[in-house]
Amino acid sequence: MQRNILLICLLLCQLSFAARAEDGSRLWLRQEAGTQTDIRAPRHSPTLDIAVDELRKAWQGAPVELVLKRDKTLKPEGFSITEKAGRVVISSPTEKGVLYGVYRLLQRQAERLPSGTPVTENPAFDLRILNHWDNLDRSVERGYAGRSLWNWDELSAPSDSDRLRYIEYARANASIGINATVLNNVNASPQILATDYLQKVKTLADLFRPYGIRVYLSVNFASPMTLGELKTADPLDKEVVTWWKNKAKEIYRLIPDFGGFLVKANSEGQPGPNDFGRTHADGANMLADVLKPYKGIVMWRAFVYSPNDDDRAKQAYLEFVPLDGQFRDNVIIQIKNGPVDFQPREPYSPLFGATPHTDQMVEFQITQEYLGFANHLAFLAPMWKEFLEFVAPASMRAMAGVANIGTDANWCGHLFAQANWYAFGRLAWNPELSSADIAREWLTQTFGTDEALVNDLSRMMLDSHEAVVDYMMPLGLHHIFSFSGHYGPGPWQTMPGGRPDWQPPYYHRADSIGVGFNRTHTGSNAVAQYPETLHRLYDDLQTCPEEYLLWFHHVPWTHLMRSGRTLWDEMCYHYDRGVQQARRFQQVWDKQESKVDAERFAHVQAKLRIQTRDAVWWKDACLLYFHTFSKMPIPYDIERPIHSFDALKRVFLRVGNHENVPEEMLNAVR
Amino acid sequence: MQRNILLICLLLCQLSFAARAEDGSRLWLRQEAGTQTDIRAPRHSPTLDIAVDELRKAWQGAPVELVLKRDKTLKPEGFSITEKAGRVVISSPTEKGVLYGVYRLLQRQAERLPSGTPVTENPAFDLRILNHWDNLDRSVERGYAGRSLWNWDELSAPSDSDRLRYIEYARANASIGINATVLNNVNASPQILATDYLQKVKTLADLFRPYGIRVYLSVNFASPMTLGELKTADPLDKEVVTWWKNKAKEIYRLIPDFGGFLVKANSEGQPGPNDFGRTHADGANMLADVLKPYKGIVMWRAFVYSPNDDDRAKQAYLEFVPLDGQFRDNVIIQIKNGPVDFQPREPYSPLFGATPHTDQMVEFQITQEYLGFANHLAFLAPMWKEFLEFVAPASMRAMAGVANIGTDANWCGHLFAQANWYAFGRLAWNPELSSADIAREWLTQTFGTDEALVNDLSRMMLDSHEAVVDYMMPLGLHHIFSFSGHYGPGPWQTMPGGRPDWQPPYYHRADSIGVGFNRTHTGSNAVAQYPETLHRLYDDLQTCPEEYLLWFHHVPWTHLMRSGRTLWDEMCYHYDRGVQQARRFQQVWDKQESKVDAERFAHVQAKLRIQTRDAVWWKDACLLYFHTFSKMPIPYDIERPIHSFDALKRVFLRVGNHENVPEEMLNAVR
Repeated sequence: MQRNILLICLLLCQLSFAARAEDGSRLWLRQEAGTQTDIRAPRHSPTLDIAVDELRKAWQGAPVELVLKRDKTLKPEGFSITEKAGRVVISSPTEKGVLYGVYRLLQRQAERLPSGTPVTENPAFDLRILNHWDNLDRSVERGYAGRSLWNWDELSAPSDSDRLRYIEYARANASIGINATVLNNVNASPQILATDYLQKVKTLADLFRPYGIRVYLSVNFASPMTLGELKTADPLDKEVVTWWKNKAKEIYRLIPDFGGFLVKANSEGQPGPNDFGRTHADGANMLADVLKPYKGIVMWRAFVYSPNDDDRAKQAYLEFVPLDGQFRDNVIIQIKNGPVDFQPREPYSPLFGATPHTDQMVEFQITQEYLGFANHLAFLAPMWKEFLEFVAPASMRAMAGVANIGTDANWCGHLFAQANWYAFGRLAWNPELSSADIAREWLTQTFGTDEALVNDLSRMMLDSHEAVVDYMMPLGLHHIFSFSGHYGPGPWQTMPGGRPDWQPPYYHRADSIGVGFNRTHTGSNAVAQYPETLHRLYDDLQTCPEEYLLWFHHVPWTHLMRSGRTLWDEMCYHYDRGVQQARRFQQVWDKQESKVDAERFAHVQAKLRIQTRDAVWWKDACLLYFHTFSKMPIPYDIERPIHSFDALKRVFLRVGNHENVPEEMLNAVR
Repeated sequence: MQRNILLICLLLCQLSFAARAEDGSRLWLRQEAGTQTDIRAPRHSPTLDIAVDELRKAWQGAPVELVLKRDKTLKPEGFSITEKAGRVVISSPTEKGVLYGVYRLLQRQAERLPSGTPVTENPAFDLRILNHWDNLDRSVERGYAGRSLWNWDELSAPSDSDRLRYIEYARANASIGINATVLNNVNASPQILATDYLQKVKTLADLFRPYGIRVYLSVNFASPMTLGELKTADPLDKEVVTWWKNKAKEIYRLIPDFGGFLVKANSEGQPGPNDFGRTHADGANMLADVLKPYKGIVMWRAFVYSPNDDDRAKQAYLEFVPLDGQFRDNVIIQIKNGPVDFQPREPYSPLFGATPHTDQMVEFQITQEYLGFANHLAFLAPMWKEFLEFVAPASMRAMAGVANIGTDANWCGHLFAQANWYAFGRLAWNPELSSADIAREWLTQTFGTDEALVNDLSRMMLDSHEAVVDYMMPLGLHHIFSFSGHYGPGPWQTMPGGRPDWQPPYYHRADSIGVGFNRTHTGSNAVAQYPETLHRLYDDLQTCPEEYLLWFHHVPWTHLMRSGRTLWDEMCYHYDRGVQQARRFQQVWDKQESKVDAERFAHVQAKLRIQTRDAVWWKDACLLYFHTFSKMPIPYDIERPIHSFDALKRVFLRVGNHENVPEEMLNAVR
């Protein structure tokens, strides 16, 4: 413990240095002017010591008493905050709950909310989990904030600076209620289960435990063959089962509160039970049985699609609905929010609610794989709230978020991408929160309480996701990215002989008549996977919400939209509106110059410039491309394209999955 | 002659093919539907045959009679057009004048002007001359339209296609009244005077003669040393004089109507009389004496400046005014319109009018060295007219224009750059024409008479020069180009140890107080070179026209402009206005899509896109750079910068003096 306290002291020194650096490393945890009032805790413990220390560091109000107490109104991790006789009392059945109460108190202080208002909170989900798509070589799949936090080579004996970073990571998660983390990529290396790596995992688990974070691992289904030396990974093979049982025993000896496994099986080349003639249920259940004695769980991903199906959007449903009822109760099917793949906007996946006898959880993507990487400001709470309007939180067991965290000083690449990490944690705790609430919470903690600043930036954040949809893929367009990394536009790109569902024209289906993927009863009939009311709504061109129009319908260019414009004109106006919004965001931000420190100001300013350039790039590329089909003029009152279509087609981005995008490469026309 | 007629037939075939290609090669000479009415000429001659042929090809009106007749109201090249008894009569003292009258008749037909209105015209200048900065290796200094037209290697026996192009060149010039051309670069290779080259020059002179074009050459003052084998080129040396006399004799034997020499001496490394302790007058007079017997002239350039003077803008004046009265009467001092070097906007050069005993002529630059090359639409008639408001045409003997012509199919790189060639010719003929008149003439001949099209495009052309000034160098800023080719912005560029007057900060002098070159009585006092009224006007910050403000004054950032804005804000608004104008030009052009053939439409559309991109580049670079001095915010209601200053400073353009700029290279950020 002494060592940890020393570390925390070192951390504080580092933080006060960071205060001068203003590199964004302090996240939303910037309060430091604690008034050293009386803080009482029932006992010393790693978690309670942290709770007390956080208050000492930042609390400026009345004396605080931390109380451990059972309370019928509180779940184990719930808490209440009350004020009694000049004392703030934070009460919870568990130390973890107390710690969450402390962070809530401090957050409310940052927001200048009255301290006297009683607060009682229980988390909506017991499991609020980050998924790191981090590889053991420290690359991060779809990571745009540097390398993986986990320095595997030195995890047996981490350096002080690494150790501080791990603790800060746990602290940030705890402050927003995240209580679990999957350390490694779903495209999992079997190596993660090797004994030496499990030792490294234990190091992290030990550091995270005081902050209430449990560790999980992604596992490779073929591990018994590649790591062990078995000839099969058939889940019904006895030796295979024994291999996994031994592995579980080994894990839990090291990490008694180990959470369980996340599995991507038979998807995009990953091995799985289908390889051995078994079902997803066979595979998931075998692992579930192995973990059951330790209260471990299996999160089994539903992200499957084969190259030969008529409609990729239908496949998770087709594959998993027939298996409903066959899964163990410690298996959760982890389903991406939409039926395709984290597009700027998707309707919700119809698999939700379609397996009434099988637990489900949603997988959101915090990292902006399809939303401008760490270059575009896109506050994702509104997108996730949109999903939650269709899928009741009560119908799910957990919420997972693919992390956007890396070794960048500011953790997330873009300062405002921190707000997505923050929002994910807050929504997993309380999905009833509005996007505006979350934006305000994050802004006041990140930039202070200046009313005009908070209002301006909150408006910008709340508009930002729609702006990205507008300049990338409005009206239900989806997956028209260029091949090189899901960053820039490539609706024209085809790969002769390649999988059709990896090629943009598969999704947009533009022709001389119109554009869009016919998923109605006259097309792939994906609409039929939705509950009756939505099925009918989406199936009819006249009633289908326009934000999903081209997702479900192939629509003539001349179709009249609700605005009275043709589809073509409407599309043009959406793209242009996205560009104009990006320009507006620049204005809004630039106006804050006197209210924000120079370093963070310049950082965000530079990112917003890239965003506008990219928005123009997207708009020009898509309109000039679709124009080759519509043959209709771009309405003359909107900003004209500034790029030539030929030049845009030659844009070459040196972007790999694991790479950042250096600014110089963006928009470079070769 | 038979051969020439055959060639003209071939040419016509080519033209009717070009009609299908619509590559801009037909320039403004697109009328082809002649009705074969009766055309009468007094005799056959190369020039009159051309005149008749042009009418046969394109004239749709009454029978025409060409008349050679002395007339006191007509100069040798003047003409009258009258209608008598159902006949159009074109009359002139010379064949050349008749030909000019024919072209005017056809131009008026294109513009649908009434054919009955009598027209009498005399050229304002006897000498209307193009300067080609073409090198013998076919590169073109400051040429952006391909290579040099002159295929020197094959000029002794030109191919039919070359010959056709030479004839078309002469025809285009004749159609707008240009009657002279300097074939080679003022940075002249001595080789041009070698016997074999003079033979080649003769080929061109013979082809041009029927169109009334006389040929001139730029000569290298050191030719007697480098081409001959003399030890000196001292103009007072007898052997030198003899060398030149023999050379002149040789030239005139080949080309009896040879026009004379253009000389760039003691300027930017070119040799000159100063190298031998002689004055410009000594040098010019020696050559003038040599040419005098043949009625040849010397155009002696006043473009001189040394690296050590306190103000480059003063030097031509300082060097030439003391020599006034010392020049022979067949010497003309050729002076650039402004005192520095063809900047987007300059005040007129005070040398004009300052040598009352020495003939002067103006040198305009048609090629857009400092106005966006062949990428930006900048109609230059308004700029030249601005000069003519200060310098009366009657005070000058001739008008020279540095050509923008090359081997590109459309001659000038940018279709609208043809309008500058056209405008130069028309203003040299009649400087009283308004810019609007010229735009209308060119537009109707180039695109037809659709009233809305002509109005829209005319407005765009008339606004275009000011737009370029706005987004490049408003308010009197000048010469803040990047080193690499005078294309992009580089106000920050310095070259340690380099000539100060080749570095942008020499010109803009930005500092924390303000910006601009102090040329008032407290500075370099260049204002004193102007006539008293202007001298006083320019010297006073309160009365100096704002378009010249930073040319003459170092002005505090907070100085209140006539708009009520600070200088800084005003500068920002100018840059932004330039960008918005470029965007507007795109709208104006895009609206013409149905009225213009697809090929020329796409060509201009692509150029306008580049222009807008470049305008944004200029604006961002200049505002972000000057902001580092002013420290004042860019007004929040204008479009925000989209580039980062650091990235802009790294822009690298592979642009040589003689190269085109491939589109891919423009705006490439390395």
